[in-house]
Amino acid sequence: MTDTLDPKARIEAMGQRARKAARAAAKAPSALKDDALERMAAKLLENVERIAAANREDLEAGRAEGLSGAFLDRLALTEPVLARMAEGVRQIAKLEDPVGAVRDVKPRPSGILVGKMRVPLGVVAMIYESRPNVTIDAAALAVKSGNALILRGGHEAIRSNRVLADIVREALVEAGLPADVVQFIDNPDRALVGELIRARDWVDVLVPRGGKGLVARLTAEATVPMIKHLDGICHTYVDRDADLKMAVRVVDNAKTQRYSPCNATETLLVHEAIAFDFLPEIARIFHDKNVEMRCDALSRRIVEGVGMSAIDATEADWDTEYNAPVIAIKTVASLDEAIDFIETHGSHHTDAIITENRTSTERFLREVDSASVMVNASTRFADGFEYGLGAEIGISTDKIHVRGPVGLEGLTNEKWIVLGHGEGRS
Amino acid sequence: MTDTLDPKARIEAMGQRARKAARAAAKAPSALKDDALERMAAKLLENVERIAAANREDLEAGRAEGLSGAFLDRLALTEPVLARMAEGVRQIAKLEDPVGAVRDVKPRPSGILVGKMRVPLGVVAMIYESRPNVTIDAAALAVKSGNALILRGGHEAIRSNRVLADIVREALVEAGLPADVVQFIDNPDRALVGELIRARDWVDVLVPRGGKGLVARLTAEATVPMIKHLDGICHTYVDRDADLKMAVRVVDNAKTQRYSPCNATETLLVHEAIAFDFLPEIARIFHDKNVEMRCDALSRRIVEGVGMSAIDATEADWDTEYNAPVIAIKTVASLDEAIDFIETHGSHHTDAIITENRTSTERFLREVDSASVMVNASTRFADGFEYGLGAEIGISTDKIHVRGPVGLEGLTNEKWIVLGHGEGRS
Repeated sequence: MTDTLDPKARIEAMGQRARKAARAAAKAPSALKDDALERMAAKLLENVERIAAANREDLEAGRAEGLSGAFLDRLALTEPVLARMAEGVRQIAKLEDPVGAVRDVKPRPSGILVGKMRVPLGVVAMIYESRPNVTIDAAALAVKSGNALILRGGHEAIRSNRVLADIVREALVEAGLPADVVQFIDNPDRALVGELIRARDWVDVLVPRGGKGLVARLTAEATVPMIKHLDGICHTYVDRDADLKMAVRVVDNAKTQRYSPCNATETLLVHEAIAFDFLPEIARIFHDKNVEMRCDALSRRIVEGVGMSAIDATEADWDTEYNAPVIAIKTVASLDEAIDFIETHGSHHTDAIITENRTSTERFLREVDSASVMVNASTRFADGFEYGLGAEIGISTDKIHVRGPVGLEGLTNEKWIVLGHGEGRS
Repeated sequence: MTDTLDPKARIEAMGQRARKAARAAAKAPSALKDDALERMAAKLLENVERIAAANREDLEAGRAEGLSGAFLDRLALTEPVLARMAEGVRQIAKLEDPVGAVRDVKPRPSGILVGKMRVPLGVVAMIYESRPNVTIDAAALAVKSGNALILRGGHEAIRSNRVLADIVREALVEAGLPADVVQFIDNPDRALVGELIRARDWVDVLVPRGGKGLVARLTAEATVPMIKHLDGICHTYVDRDADLKMAVRVVDNAKTQRYSPCNATETLLVHEAIAFDFLPEIARIFHDKNVEMRCDALSRRIVEGVGMSAIDATEADWDTEYNAPVIAIKTVASLDEAIDFIETHGSHHTDAIITENRTSTERFLREVDSASVMVNASTRFADGFEYGLGAEIGISTDKIHVRGPVGLEGLTNEKWIVLGHGEGRS
């Protein structure tokens, strides 16, 4: 029995099954993968009651555990939620298959042709918290990109995730793929996570999805490479050469369109030459929307000067991701100071400049080292759907492999192909 | 004094300097970086005696330590070696600058334009063993790709590396770049390596270059992402539909052109349908070149049947990188068995098929999950220069970021750029 194995042996057994399944997934034709996804979507709708029953048990246990209402909301799998999940799977089925694409095949002086072929990463492990829809999202993206997947969800959703994973596996088998293309760690033992994040022989990449605490903990301990997102401290810088009407509109959207997402602007930088014209306008909007303004001395003076309230920002404010109706505001004397500030306090997620100046645009685009760098647009656009990826498994703030929104391409890589005619090296 | 700091604080201090220097390197125009490289090359030739003096001390200490002749050979910086190093730097200066290239800028339904820009990774740390030429290679590639570099070489070359790093830093300053674009850890304390490989705040990627022991040790402990190469267990599979004359020529080259490189073929797989025709031909060549043949039962029978000597392969032979005049030989009943064998025993480095069959070609290219997959070509071609990269910092057998030969592009990544006109998200 698997259950009697120690955590290391359990992860190894899952890893071996995943490796084998990954080979089947990697060579599966697009039609077969899409058939599996269509079956997955259909089964979600056919099994509403079966899923709801398991979900009710999770919700009851959650209530007994004293989980918050917001937490329980995220946990709930209602019929509309399941319908949206099924629709998401069907959208992924319609995306172009990235696997097998060949590009840039070119002759070399030796006579060989050298090019690149896009291939799956292999075995992906996903560690996530309460939302059980991640189980389906991740499974659909893994199948479409030809990878095998090991899922580890939060214990609060374990009954829901178990049923969702079963449904995914049933769909895979009916389509003719191994069930083990998607495996679910059906055991809340935390030692399994410890083994999973160090299982370099079996897992090619780790995708954590959850709160900052989870990601930070895994990052400190993992030796398996990760695609991860730690902080979203996004800036919008209003340059001295900004179109101020545009600046008001874009900054309003970047901060207030939604407060909780990681791509919402948390810090507003304003060139002091236009601060007296710009800040009163935006401050009125923030005031009306009850957005708390935490300001440096000059910006506080300007905001209060037109009768709105503001408080002093502390050093900690410059490094804080609020995910709430709070904004830090700072005036700067130059583009250089703005870029320095972003490089010092930002999280390499998404930062924007509002300007009409060509040189400022080019410098900001080149010198701000963030996954998404924007000109005259709301930071809220940093999103796989808005960028045209068709789906998103997360947003990476890492420097290697993939930066920003991660779609199907982020779950693949390119290998070299060499087409020869009997050449040897001399 | 830096010297009184503990290892963690020392790495942190270097990391902070590297971060700052990385920003200057990232925004440096191509002409400035190339000027630094030209100065570096010139200084290598102008400082032959200064370098040789330090190198002599390393060689004397190495002899006293009892290092092998081969080791001391690799350590020696003779005038021709320095001339080759300078020429390598000049070639890197001539390569196209990858930084700042923008591609695929496309409009989205929201009105924004979304594209990608190639940017440096940031801070690269290189940990390497005896060859001091790596100091120069790595510095030149880091400068050209706009990264900052932290170097940690072996203690046997510390005096040579110190002088080489000084020369690099002098060239940087003369060209107008910060000296700290390239830093050298001038202290043999191994605790510094332990800190460096876990310095996620300061180091973006780790590139180990050295023996398997070094890389395996670092891999087990590092939490900084790595670009690395562990094993080079390369296969050549001679298919039933191979052109046998071509197969003999390619396999001979793949095994015997040089024995020590990681891309030399270590295991020969032969379809049993052509084994009786093919093996006697290649066995004669191996016999004449004193290549030891370690065979499965059938291939041994065939080889001995034509009067050549062979020995039985053990299970361990299928998983061994010889880097020597030894080859493991196995017959297989099908393409599937060949692919299974490579996936089970290979190291995802480089594997080749010799065949005239179209379907076998396509299946092998797609299903063999190696950094380089070849048809009718010698595995020895897996090399940055042969692929047209112009330079090579190493070969990656990892699955994420970059696979196979790593050139300038492997030391960069792409970020998203968004060009708007005042759009907000709805």
